[in-house]
Amino acid sequence: GSTPIVMQRNPMFSTINADDITKFKEILGEKNVVQDEEALLAANTDWMRKYKGSSNLLLQPRTTEEVYIFLSCEIVAACFTIFCIRISFPHLDRLFDKVSQVLKYCNSRCLAVVPQGGNTGLVGGSVPVFDEVIINMGSMKNIISFDKVRRRLYMVSGILVCEAGCILENLVSFLDNQGAVWKPNFWILDLTMPPFRFVMPLDLGAKGSCQIGGNVSTNAGGLRFVRYGSLHGNVLGLEAVLANGTVLDMLGTLRKDNTGYDLKHLFIGSEGSLGIISKVSILTPPKLSSVNLAFLACKDYVSCQNLLLEAKRKLGNILSAFEFLDSHSMDLVLNHSEGVRNPLPPSMHNFYVLIETTGSDQSYDKEKLEAFLLRSMEVGLISDGVLAQDINQAFSFWRIREGVPEALMKAGAVYKYDLSLPIEKMYDLVEEMRMRLGPAAKVVGYGHLGDGNLHLNISLPEYDDTVLGQVEPFVYEWTSKHRGSISAEHGLGLMKANKIHYSKSTESVHLMVSIKKLLDPNGILNPYKVLPSSLTS
Amino acid sequence: GSTPIVMQRNPMFSTINADDITKFKEILGEKNVVQDEEALLAANTDWMRKYKGSSNLLLQPRTTEEVYIFLSCEIVAACFTIFCIRISFPHLDRLFDKVSQVLKYCNSRCLAVVPQGGNTGLVGGSVPVFDEVIINMGSMKNIISFDKVRRRLYMVSGILVCEAGCILENLVSFLDNQGAVWKPNFWILDLTMPPFRFVMPLDLGAKGSCQIGGNVSTNAGGLRFVRYGSLHGNVLGLEAVLANGTVLDMLGTLRKDNTGYDLKHLFIGSEGSLGIISKVSILTPPKLSSVNLAFLACKDYVSCQNLLLEAKRKLGNILSAFEFLDSHSMDLVLNHSEGVRNPLPPSMHNFYVLIETTGSDQSYDKEKLEAFLLRSMEVGLISDGVLAQDINQAFSFWRIREGVPEALMKAGAVYKYDLSLPIEKMYDLVEEMRMRLGPAAKVVGYGHLGDGNLHLNISLPEYDDTVLGQVEPFVYEWTSKHRGSISAEHGLGLMKANKIHYSKSTESVHLMVSIKKLLDPNGILNPYKVLPSSLTS
Ligand SMILES: Cc1cc2nc3c(=O)[nH]c(=O)nc-3n(C[C@H](O)[C@H](O)[C@H](O)COP(=O)(O)OP(=O)(O)OC[C@H]3O[C@@H](n4cnc5c(N)ncnc54)[C@H](O)[C@@H]3O)c2cc1C
Ligand SMILES: Cc1cc2nc3c(=O)[nH]c(=O)nc-3n(C[C@H](O)[C@H](O)[C@H](O)COP(=O)(O)OP(=O)(O)OC[C@H]3O[C@@H](n4cnc5c(N)ncnc54)[C@H](O)[C@@H]3O)c2cc1C
Repeated sequence: GSTPIVMQRNPMFSTINADDITKFKEILGEKNVVQDEEALLAANTDWMRKYKGSSNLLLQPRTTEEVYIFLSCEIVAACFTIFCIRISFPHLDRLFDKVSQVLKYCNSRCLAVVPQGGNTGLVGGSVPVFDEVIINMGSMKNIISFDKVRRRLYMVSGILVCEAGCILENLVSFLDNQGAVWKPNFWILDLTMPPFRFVMPLDLGAKGSCQIGGNVSTNAGGLRFVRYGSLHGNVLGLEAVLANGTVLDMLGTLRKDNTGYDLKHLFIGSEGSLGIISKVSILTPPKLSSVNLAFLACKDYVSCQNLLLEAKRKLGNILSAFEFLDSHSMDLVLNHSEGVRNPLPPSMHNFYVLIETTGSDQSYDKEKLEAFLLRSMEVGLISDGVLAQDINQAFSFWRIREGVPEALMKAGAVYKYDLSLPIEKMYDLVEEMRMRLGPAAKVVGYGHLGDGNLHLNISLPEYDDTVLGQVEPFVYEWTSKHRGSISAEHGLGLMKANKIHYSKSTESVHLMVSIKKLLDPNGILNPYKVLPSSLTS
Repeated sequence: GSTPIVMQRNPMFSTINADDITKFKEILGEKNVVQDEEALLAANTDWMRKYKGSSNLLLQPRTTEEVYIFLSCEIVAACFTIFCIRISFPHLDRLFDKVSQVLKYCNSRCLAVVPQGGNTGLVGGSVPVFDEVIINMGSMKNIISFDKVRRRLYMVSGILVCEAGCILENLVSFLDNQGAVWKPNFWILDLTMPPFRFVMPLDLGAKGSCQIGGNVSTNAGGLRFVRYGSLHGNVLGLEAVLANGTVLDMLGTLRKDNTGYDLKHLFIGSEGSLGIISKVSILTPPKLSSVNLAFLACKDYVSCQNLLLEAKRKLGNILSAFEFLDSHSMDLVLNHSEGVRNPLPPSMHNFYVLIETTGSDQSYDKEKLEAFLLRSMEVGLISDGVLAQDINQAFSFWRIREGVPEALMKAGAVYKYDLSLPIEKMYDLVEEMRMRLGPAAKVVGYGHLGDGNLHLNISLPEYDDTVLGQVEPFVYEWTSKHRGSISAEHGLGLMKANKIHYSKSTESVHLMVSIKKLLDPNGILNPYKVLPSSLTS
């Protein structure tokens, strides 16, 4: 048990019956209609094991074999084939669209559903609250096209089109391999140049499980936001299925397209409450060869801030990550994550900062970073620091930062807050919270300092409503007072659906509700989430 | 006369009467209710002098003196004051909000309106079709805040908040001046460093007249898109006034905010048909000191393409513009723009390319560009070229590229098409069109090659329906067949409202129409534009 959420199942929704199961099996095939208890338990429980639903049905729509059967053999040939098929029969996909058929049926029966990706969300958005049908997208994991090779010319547009269920890490590897197999044997210029590879414009600790559809649905930020910016800028197109089964083809692959309202943005960050995202088209930036990573110690928060300021000025366009963690976070990772060592022994410092640079010129970039670090050391902004000497060391530094959420989980119960705040105020909140709660709780602060995004976490042996009462609404009021956001990147989900007014005006919330009603009149898509239940039901 | 648009005035709309005028004078003050013929003629006519309305009324809402009176004295002090006022009386603005009062009244009377910015739009969106009331935003030109200096710490967030009527070029100068007056007298690091300045993340030929509100409403692309990307990524917040006068405060200044649907994106690119944008919050990137510009000649289009490919690979993150024009465009500029000289005499080349780099290290960047140009020359991608030696020469190169639209205007009648196309196909269309039209018309191609954005223009002594019949729908069908966009950056306006289906699916268009009806049930905002009239009236 955790946050006490007193909530009523919406009686408008039907409950699953035998006919429904028959119908779903008809649409999806026997094995994709899951009623097995173990699988259901996993799908009902969120990553933190904090939110738990009681759904009896897990559906796993799969790409229609009729259309994508070719994919297993030869990806390029298949893409071409699919392309031809799509050109000749643009509606063929739709006829076979399983997600569309499932939603259409659920809508007609008024069965509530939860769209689910990798189930790594941190606000209780990806699991049922009651008995909603779980639609997991993990089986829709085909790469549809990667626009690099076009006929006789090698293009460098780097546009990837894939199904929503692709796991982020798999896309990263795919892009890396694309480069590796690229033999520019009829290219007129430098045949000696290294292959041109691409990367995903987002990266996060959950990359091994989270899906691109989940990332887009939560408008995930992550570790490279400071460099590549928001998914609103990187996603070029989407296919989304509305509650009534309508397939909305917004799957453009163009850099620029100003024909009417740009509807895809409604779905980016809507957490499965407006439609199920089934395909994504995304601009992938070139992978640059020179990456450097420094792990640094600062004596106080003001130094972290000033370091950021200087990093932005002096590293400018090679800066690709600026993350921080306080000693309390470091302590947790050292105690709870296996095989992690303190890179700056023997003592503990108050703050740690990771600075990554990415560029195209190894010696120049390294020199630039080294000069910057030296100067920052001289003026006392940095107390100690180390530059990763190889990829393994870089990996071990990243493990520390990426390991904080997992270490917090292992340490016991945790209340998580994901806030945008003016950078100069940010750590005041952590300190105030620490004062407020006293020794009863461990208060840790870490996150994406470069974007003004603090992860404030309160770690306890077990969930405790008295402590929670001291944390909330204080943390939301404090954030609102400083004109911050109560959810920088994780979304509202179930946890903060009723808290939206701390960050959004009444008029805005009302318009959101109207849009929800327009797109999903029966409210079957991810009910009880995102918007205040008082306004939606 | 030009494109014959057979259109009926929507009889639902009222016509202006004496009471309306009285009411508007009451709200805006006598001098902001303009009925003067000359002013009306200008406001009724678009930049190309191709679209002409017959409105009898021009309204110029002004920032409420009650709130912003301080601004004239001391900007920083005033910002602080306003900030305090806003904190204490958050609804004060709204009480005085002229745009809100005007729209509320128009909506109640069912008077149609056209929001107007700098009136530089190229698709007939900014002028009335019949007698719609023109609401020009040019008097709302205050800068509200620039988040660089915060108390004792210099922040580098670079977030600019301003009213919608600010002219783009004025914002550029403002940002440049901010840097200049910055004296870091209590900053602990290098006091010797040059000041940290900022730039607008967009730039376009019309910068001297267009307004930021117009830019956002058209989702303008422009010359630096290849570097800074779309306004969907750069705009952090908006204030928009809906048809019924509701002020929608989405004026966030945070890099990250995932609380509910990101409504501002609906207004970005909606061309005044969903609401009037009254304030804009935008992320301005740091102004980097090292800018280089090359003016190059290529023998054929394939060379331009390959040059782009190589520029992306080798110049990577310092590439800030990649523009092209064909010999026909060059010819027009040389003949019609004053004081322009051919930078690569004596002969004419088939294609010209401008490559701009922007970085932080003058000698390194220049070396990189020079090496790139040398190599491209060696392998024959470039036939000739010159590097701007100073800012004046750079300015003169830009004048050529930016001068094409103006030169086309002076040359006579012009049919303009703004297309996104796969880069390798792009120029085929220009050549096909040339073949199709024969010597009767001059067909020119230029534009933002780096983003796959072609400006195809057909220049004639005067408008000619026979020629038009040969151009349309051919150009739209060709674009649609190649999965391009019939409007990359200019929007649909009046010109292409009925052509939207060439680029968008039926389902998407229907959803757009539903959203239009939700936000503007009487359809008073910029009627006959953006969406097909068959669906909206
Ligand atoms: C260790 C760890 C580190 C993390 N780091 C970050 C970080 O740095 N930055 C960050 O932003 N987040 C982070 N997260 C949160 C989470 O990983 C991201 O929000 C991620 O994008 C969720 O993807 P998912 O596929 O797991 O989605 P899920 O958790 O399955 O779902 C999340 C939400 O999206 C909806 N959804 C999922 N797929 C679809 C779809 N195809 N169509 C419509 N709706 C869908 C769900 O209904 C739910 O509301 C982290 C999580 C963990 C566990
Ligand atoms: C020489 C020249 C070069 C150009 N170059 C480019 C270029 O490189 N890239 C590009 O994208 N465009 C370009 N344009 C087109 C045009 O300048 C841009 O579209 C510009 O953004 C329009 O701004 P504006 O203030 O003039 O808007 P207007 O022309 O006044 O209006 C354009 C549209 O926006 C609406 N609108 C204006 N202000 C508001 C507001 N505050 N609230 C709601 N709706 C509003 C109007 O109703 C209209 O539909 C160019 C135009 C010219 C003349």
